[in-house]
Amino acid sequence: MRDIFILTEQQLRECVSLDAAIVDVIESAFRALAGGKVVMPPILSMDIADANGEVDVKTAYIPDFDGFAIKVSPGFFDNPKLGLPSLNGLMILFSAKTGLVDALLLDNGYLTDVRTAAAGAVAARHLAPSGIRAVTVFGTGIQARLQVRAARLVRAFDKVHVWGRNPERAAACAGDIAESLGVDAVAVSDPGAAVADSQLVITTTPAREPLFRAEWLHPGLHVTAMGSDQEGKNEIDPAALRDADLYVCDRLAQAEKLGELRSARAAGYLGDVSPPELGAVVVGDHPGRKDDRQVTICDLTGTGAQDTAIATHANQVARAAGLGNVIRA
Amino acid sequence: MRDIFILTEQQLRECVSLDAAIVDVIESAFRALAGGKVVMPPILSMDIADANGEVDVKTAYIPDFDGFAIKVSPGFFDNPKLGLPSLNGLMILFSAKTGLVDALLLDNGYLTDVRTAAAGAVAARHLAPSGIRAVTVFGTGIQARLQVRAARLVRAFDKVHVWGRNPERAAACAGDIAESLGVDAVAVSDPGAAVADSQLVITTTPAREPLFRAEWLHPGLHVTAMGSDQEGKNEIDPAALRDADLYVCDRLAQAEKLGELRSARAAGYLGDVSPPELGAVVVGDHPGRKDDRQVTICDLTGTGAQDTAIATHANQVARAAGLGNVIRA
Repeated sequence: MRDIFILTEQQLRECVSLDAAIVDVIESAFRALAGGKVVMPPILSMDIADANGEVDVKTAYIPDFDGFAIKVSPGFFDNPKLGLPSLNGLMILFSAKTGLVDALLLDNGYLTDVRTAAAGAVAARHLAPSGIRAVTVFGTGIQARLQVRAARLVRAFDKVHVWGRNPERAAACAGDIAESLGVDAVAVSDPGAAVADSQLVITTTPAREPLFRAEWLHPGLHVTAMGSDQEGKNEIDPAALRDADLYVCDRLAQAEKLGELRSARAAGYLGDVSPPELGAVVVGDHPGRKDDRQVTICDLTGTGAQDTAIATHANQVARAAGLGNVIRA
Repeated sequence: MRDIFILTEQQLRECVSLDAAIVDVIESAFRALAGGKVVMPPILSMDIADANGEVDVKTAYIPDFDGFAIKVSPGFFDNPKLGLPSLNGLMILFSAKTGLVDALLLDNGYLTDVRTAAAGAVAARHLAPSGIRAVTVFGTGIQARLQVRAARLVRAFDKVHVWGRNPERAAACAGDIAESLGVDAVAVSDPGAAVADSQLVITTTPAREPLFRAEWLHPGLHVTAMGSDQEGKNEIDPAALRDADLYVCDRLAQAEKLGELRSARAAGYLGDVSPPELGAVVVGDHPGRKDDRQVTICDLTGTGAQDTAIATHANQVARAAGLGNVIRA
């Protein structure tokens, strides 16, 4: 019999939010990835076609972290018809010394939302030009909102363009961004014009055909593409990866299977290079952006290292705050 | 906010035990595997060399089952020095319709022990000769005890030979088997002589060099090898797989990577055949043993389908018995 610590989504929302501290926590995961001692196996992925569902399991062991997380992320895309969210899941934190269950983080995907957005902030901090006036975001969901909020933790823009297939949702998303960040945020119908006005573009869609055109690249632009995390997804025109001055991914082994790199290579580009990972840029092993005129692209597929980092952090801050329940099992 | 049902190891022990009902539950998993509609991705496996640990994640979707389990099995082999068990873990049961967490089964590996032994009973039921007088078990741990108990659910032997590297542990294991089953069970120092006297042999060790010699095969013998579940493990002399009349595995894609089949193929045997799976024998797609003189071998690596089957069953019987705790998350 041992005590297992249980945190609900509500308790996690009380003690973990998308702020500068979380960006540093996630940045530490990328630093660790650059160190070469992280153990991060391929994602376990299972399709449940009968229910239009899928489930992914991610994990990573990071040396010097007390625990490692196993994250289970189901996505069941008929759920909205039942009034339920498509995305769910939980994280389990295990002791890295004994393998015993330390904590169950019943977050319904909340920590994934936060750590995914925080990775966008890390990318923007290390790759976006220093001066950003306007941002364009593709997509109108939770990540569209959170990615813009994350970017604002590291860059001081005051204009946001929101593009989505559904104009009403784009307007609602822009309204939420304007209200929460106090910036001028508007839905746009011409994404090319919005990109031309922007120094940072963030794509957050599940697109299977490119939305972002290569001809939209312009000097002084950084693009973070975080939508593609599965074979078959593709937000960015492969020629844009060819034309950019620098392409960076979160994890090469994942990006070449699940990210924009997969589509670019299928189109015949970047076949002869081994692109740098974000961690290498963070720790300075790769120079990253050389000047404010360069064009850079960062491809985020989502890593188990981020999950281990945020789960470890959430466990610590929740315990310190006296939150959570204990079950003897 | 939803209700999540939580079961502790103690509660699971109250409502799930190794009995005929569980053997049928696990047999249903093998039937489903034979049907070809189970989705069972490769095992996610992570080594944590710093702590002499590893963690495996298994899952499977079985059509017509309400849920699917994700099982996390850590093995940290320095734990005994700390007074802790090496093996642990939990299962999470998700709705196969919505992907929502249905139940957390904090079993510390108990359900794995039971479903692993039950697979041995399924193998013995369908592959062992009809008349068994004596059984030899290799290994002295929990699976040595449980596998013999499982075999006795399907065959009426009254003699058990226990062989282990450590004679004291073998004697203790034999004592436990004798007491729990009311059979004549003794520790043996000559495993070849024990096998010669037996019609069923069960190997339950983490051996990395074969313990069971090919020359011990004799007419009317069935061998179930359940120890090898990782690259590098090997209990059975590869020549025994070559010499047996029939070799059956639980899941071909796993056995060729993790089971005895891996070693046999590395030795140059069975390279030209696609061996039948246990499920095919269960449903009658493969004839299995043809007569009581044949020599058969069954190689069990452990499948996610068994985990989904036992987790679904445990959830049902625990709820029916009014056991468990509910947390709103």
